[in-house]
Amino acid sequence: MQAFQNLIEHFQKISRFSHLSAICGWDAAAMMPSGGNQARSEAMAELSVHIHSLMTQPHLSDLFEQASEEVKSSTDNATLREMKRQWLQSNVLPEDLVQAKSLAGSKCEHAWRTQRNDNDWQGFEKNWAEVVKLSQEEAQIRSDATGLNPYDSMLDIYEPGTYSKSLDNIFDDVKSWLPNLIDQAIEKQNSEKYIKPEGIFSSRKQKSLGLEVMKLLQFDFNHGRLDESVHPFCGGVNTDVRITTRYDESEFVQSLMGIVHETGHARYEQGRPSSLSGLPSGEARSMGIHESQSLFFEMQLGRSNEFIAHLSKLAKAHFSGANNPLFSQENLYKLYTRVKKDFIRVDADELTYPAHVILRYEIERDLINGKITHSDVPELWDNKMQHYLGLSTQGNYKNGCMQDIHWTDGAFGYFPSYTLGAMYAAQFMASMKQDLDVSEVIHSRNLTSIFEWLHENIWTKGSLYSTDELVKQATGETLNTDHFKRHLTQRYLG
Amino acid sequence: MQAFQNLIEHFQKISRFSHLSAICGWDAAAMMPSGGNQARSEAMAELSVHIHSLMTQPHLSDLFEQASEEVKSSTDNATLREMKRQWLQSNVLPEDLVQAKSLAGSKCEHAWRTQRNDNDWQGFEKNWAEVVKLSQEEAQIRSDATGLNPYDSMLDIYEPGTYSKSLDNIFDDVKSWLPNLIDQAIEKQNSEKYIKPEGIFSSRKQKSLGLEVMKLLQFDFNHGRLDESVHPFCGGVNTDVRITTRYDESEFVQSLMGIVHETGHARYEQGRPSSLSGLPSGEARSMGIHESQSLFFEMQLGRSNEFIAHLSKLAKAHFSGANNPLFSQENLYKLYTRVKKDFIRVDADELTYPAHVILRYEIERDLINGKITHSDVPELWDNKMQHYLGLSTQGNYKNGCMQDIHWTDGAFGYFPSYTLGAMYAAQFMASMKQDLDVSEVIHSRNLTSIFEWLHENIWTKGSLYSTDELVKQATGETLNTDHFKRHLTQRYLG
Repeated sequence: MQAFQNLIEHFQKISRFSHLSAICGWDAAAMMPSGGNQARSEAMAELSVHIHSLMTQPHLSDLFEQASEEVKSSTDNATLREMKRQWLQSNVLPEDLVQAKSLAGSKCEHAWRTQRNDNDWQGFEKNWAEVVKLSQEEAQIRSDATGLNPYDSMLDIYEPGTYSKSLDNIFDDVKSWLPNLIDQAIEKQNSEKYIKPEGIFSSRKQKSLGLEVMKLLQFDFNHGRLDESVHPFCGGVNTDVRITTRYDESEFVQSLMGIVHETGHARYEQGRPSSLSGLPSGEARSMGIHESQSLFFEMQLGRSNEFIAHLSKLAKAHFSGANNPLFSQENLYKLYTRVKKDFIRVDADELTYPAHVILRYEIERDLINGKITHSDVPELWDNKMQHYLGLSTQGNYKNGCMQDIHWTDGAFGYFPSYTLGAMYAAQFMASMKQDLDVSEVIHSRNLTSIFEWLHENIWTKGSLYSTDELVKQATGETLNTDHFKRHLTQRYLG
Repeated sequence: MQAFQNLIEHFQKISRFSHLSAICGWDAAAMMPSGGNQARSEAMAELSVHIHSLMTQPHLSDLFEQASEEVKSSTDNATLREMKRQWLQSNVLPEDLVQAKSLAGSKCEHAWRTQRNDNDWQGFEKNWAEVVKLSQEEAQIRSDATGLNPYDSMLDIYEPGTYSKSLDNIFDDVKSWLPNLIDQAIEKQNSEKYIKPEGIFSSRKQKSLGLEVMKLLQFDFNHGRLDESVHPFCGGVNTDVRITTRYDESEFVQSLMGIVHETGHARYEQGRPSSLSGLPSGEARSMGIHESQSLFFEMQLGRSNEFIAHLSKLAKAHFSGANNPLFSQENLYKLYTRVKKDFIRVDADELTYPAHVILRYEIERDLINGKITHSDVPELWDNKMQHYLGLSTQGNYKNGCMQDIHWTDGAFGYFPSYTLGAMYAAQFMASMKQDLDVSEVIHSRNLTSIFEWLHENIWTKGSLYSTDELVKQATGETLNTDHFKRHLTQRYLG
């Protein structure tokens, strides 16, 4: 077991450097004053180079070969498989392509921050053409190495084992019922009266409310914290998970549910198997499974009537609004389930969100596979928005194809994870309901048995199994979108 | 200039890793929940090993040799000299001694945290004997390499160019007048009436007061921040300086002046020469010079009547105490200049502080030079405390020789920096007063000209000159303790 042991120690060493990168990355977003940015970026880049050099040491190749003959147990096999997966991903691309893409992505993203506001598609396209070209090159090299088609080889970075063939089926199914469901839900909500939050909800009170909700969700404060950043995220390391939120003092509902969402990510991290600490097999299975946990917290648990009853009570207490109908359970439920066809993905509700994702998936798939070019994107976007949500984005680039950061630096293949996550979450909840009286558990305020289910079936499994195996072990079947459809239908038409 | 250029790039690379270490170190003290400690310690240790390996690469020796023939300008010469200084310090000790001392120090310090409370000298001595033994070995090796005596070779780590021969003279002088001055000051203050702060001064208000004072001191918030930690310190990097404080809600004066002190350290860091960024020649000159800046802020500027007038106004505003005599300028001045003979160095006032330092200096000098042994320390401590401050520590180890953390992990040679700093600060102020009407400048609330003096004479000089040269260029003479004596006499008997 010498080669395998050497590999383990090598990857644990890498994970210690990744730890520093995660903490300093969190710091840059949540703590660092802007004047610290230049030196920090240089330090982080130096660390990336070092990690990359550790990941590409020539002797690793021999170690992998020898180790494959040494390992026997299924856990060791999984550890070896996942180490090899990360190693291959780091070694497949030539250095100059990595560097060129990183430069082109930084340049495009930096300019995009002003170009988007100016609705400047022509300016954006000039930089973006290079990002797309280099991403296509990347996809082709990955394709040659994996035998997958180019787009699937990009998808494989975020969703190992999920390919466009099955995504096409899944999303075609969704497209067959979603637009109609959206229309019906909007029709049903048309006559509903609800109260929007207005006025000052101080950051301080929002934070103390958020912390209270994190306690209810059994966030482990001995291994993590809550802070603020412009773009909320879950970062840090699994022994010290750093989640962030952003407070808008004119309302409180968004930040509050944002905290519930990030707490879902955080508990997955906190629950990862400590016996595989520092090893790729102990890491989260995929971006889709990660998102399934945040969306389980946000959509399945957090938007349940029973949970919103707790939120209502807590909000009344924190904002001294015992008799204010704004904070009533009924009103909060309406606020949290309001459906609206709109342009912006990150502001979209649960029901219209998949339409935003499918649109992006279809475009990026064809773009990376070379079936369309970057100049086709605005028109395709407009067509699909009209088709799925009845909105035109003609000439409206800033609220159309220029709205997301993902494509600016070439993160093609990421978008499907969001909707896969929502689907897995619905499936996990359906399965959990066979074991538990979930409504009663939430009502009781003691959510332990819900978290035990997730801990046992998802969190402690890390990357020991493929996504399909993981989901099958947890729910008895691989991804089945009926659960998602049933969940949405019940919530919005039930 | 190839070798010199290579060295520069190598040291800049090291400084980027040190950047990450500084930020993660600050995080561990100010942000990290305790459950994150184990993994963080491992990550930090991995980083230390990496930095050490960069500092001890065999090819550096040749580069230094070649570079010495390349450099011409005085700045390059200083850069080469300071790179070589750090390189020699990292390479002089054998690995096994570094490791053994680190282990013995950790063990001793860890046990000390409870042994001190238990007044357990016997228990402590068992661990400490090993720390002393290894520190003596370290000092001997450093002595062989530098030609200095063993203690001076330790002093050289913190105060390059300052040796015990001159410290003996300096401290003998102080001993000739300090005890008498302390007695007279106490006698003079005996009849003084003053009001102690009592009650709740919320952390929130103390923080906002502290931030206000930092603004007055022109702390650059675009390159730094204020946070909290158990032991206040100044950390981070010069482009992003992190200072911390600790709030005790029963009073506010200590935290407030602590912030003034750390702001002095911070402004030195923020003012270091950016043209030498990442190079040893751009770093702070010595611990004594660093302390001279924090003590200039705390003792020379912060305790001046004019500055205390500003503190008084700000405290009245922040604690809504316009008519409360507690916040009057006169009362705050009394609180900040109260003299008391007491046991604990970190709680000592400006006047008795040097006595605490001299006592430690005399003991550690003889200990490292092998003139006394670890078992002699308690009795020597007691004798010297009786002699300098009229207090007995017989049997009172916790408030005697077991009170400081420094010796527990073998940081012998550090203590003199505190009093050297106080002396340099007094000398800088005396010199500044020849150029500026300092009282009037402070009174005006616009302290710019004071900071310009420090910026020009100290901060931007980095480590370009030896301490003696630096001080001579700034004040026209090397260290002259008369300024310190005059300052203390004027403040406490004037």
